[in-house]
Amino acid sequence: MTERSLLNQLIDALRCLPGVGPKSAQRIAFHLLERNREGGARLAQIMADAMLRIQRCRRCRTLSEHELCGICANPRRDAGLLCVVEQPSEIVAIEQATDFRGLYFVLGGRLSPLDGIGPDELGLDVLESRLHDEPVSELILAISPTVEGSATAHYIADSAARHGVRVTRIAHGVPLGGELEYVDGGTLALAFSGRRAL
Amino acid sequence: MTERSLLNQLIDALRCLPGVGPKSAQRIAFHLLERNREGGARLAQIMADAMLRIQRCRRCRTLSEHELCGICANPRRDAGLLCVVEQPSEIVAIEQATDFRGLYFVLGGRLSPLDGIGPDELGLDVLESRLHDEPVSELILAISPTVEGSATAHYIADSAARHGVRVTRIAHGVPLGGELEYVDGGTLALAFSGRRAL
Repeated sequence: MTERSLLNQLIDALRCLPGVGPKSAQRIAFHLLERNREGGARLAQIMADAMLRIQRCRRCRTLSEHELCGICANPRRDAGLLCVVEQPSEIVAIEQATDFRGLYFVLGGRLSPLDGIGPDELGLDVLESRLHDEPVSELILAISPTVEGSATAHYIADSAARHGVRVTRIAHGVPLGGELEYVDGGTLALAFSGRRAL
Repeated sequence: MTERSLLNQLIDALRCLPGVGPKSAQRIAFHLLERNREGGARLAQIMADAMLRIQRCRRCRTLSEHELCGICANPRRDAGLLCVVEQPSEIVAIEQATDFRGLYFVLGGRLSPLDGIGPDELGLDVLESRLHDEPVSELILAISPTVEGSATAHYIADSAARHGVRVTRIAHGVPLGGELEYVDGGTLALAFSGRRAL
């Protein structure tokens, strides 16, 4: 075998999928070639299309092939509620689990000056102009309560305060059905400091 | 969202990969879109090409984009040794682990009349004509020792006997480093019945 075979090229290329090592890549390649060529061909076509055409929504920065994503383009969503998340995948989770009908804003990360991630990288200028231009009455922060996440939340809260927008933060604590003894210490401490009167 | 977004189409299409459910599909889609578009685009292109162009080698029936696979086309391989395997992936394993320098033949399954898999489906007519036309001196069966595998092996052995070709079978038994107590009963029984003098 002088040149690399197409099969080996496919096995190598499959390793760009997260969590796929050499053995899994081989298994996937043989599975597609022997049992599901149609699915593989369809996936290849959609993947090529998606890598090329999906960009960020101009308004909320989530992933979309349109200039405005489906949620931002929907006039029935409540523009008074704006939920700030770190990643586009979190929008999917919130949409599936809650009855939130407001709009979103995707940071794409947390403030981390040492890694070169400042307010501009998170699109906080875009968020600020939304607070200025849109009738936002409540800004809901769904940002993880890490050190960097808290710094990001405070930065955004300051900016919202300047625009007179009320800022809330989703509750962090022990999850439903979570056994206290298996919950990590940080979460348990948060649950205690965030206790509420019954 | 009236029409299905391209992102959702991608997540759906990714579920054709073996072992990928809705959550993993979503994780893979976001990973590729946010961190490795180049890899995703490359994978899409190679996958489309592979699904279209990879066929079976005319001589050994393994997967290859050429009429003859790299091993069959290599004049330095020993045409006197022919190893029969069930799946193309087994050739990869044998090539990696052993110093076997002969040729292969891929059955693609085992004889199973109830499922409609007879000698023709396994290409046993192709194998027979190879035994007739090529200078095969030893036929090595690397077929799993199940009921159907054994029936297949016997069928092939009979055919080889008619052509005066010596037939061997790879050893089945306790694997290297295998703890006797954890080896399945069938393997242990095989290891006992196949014991050899020291």
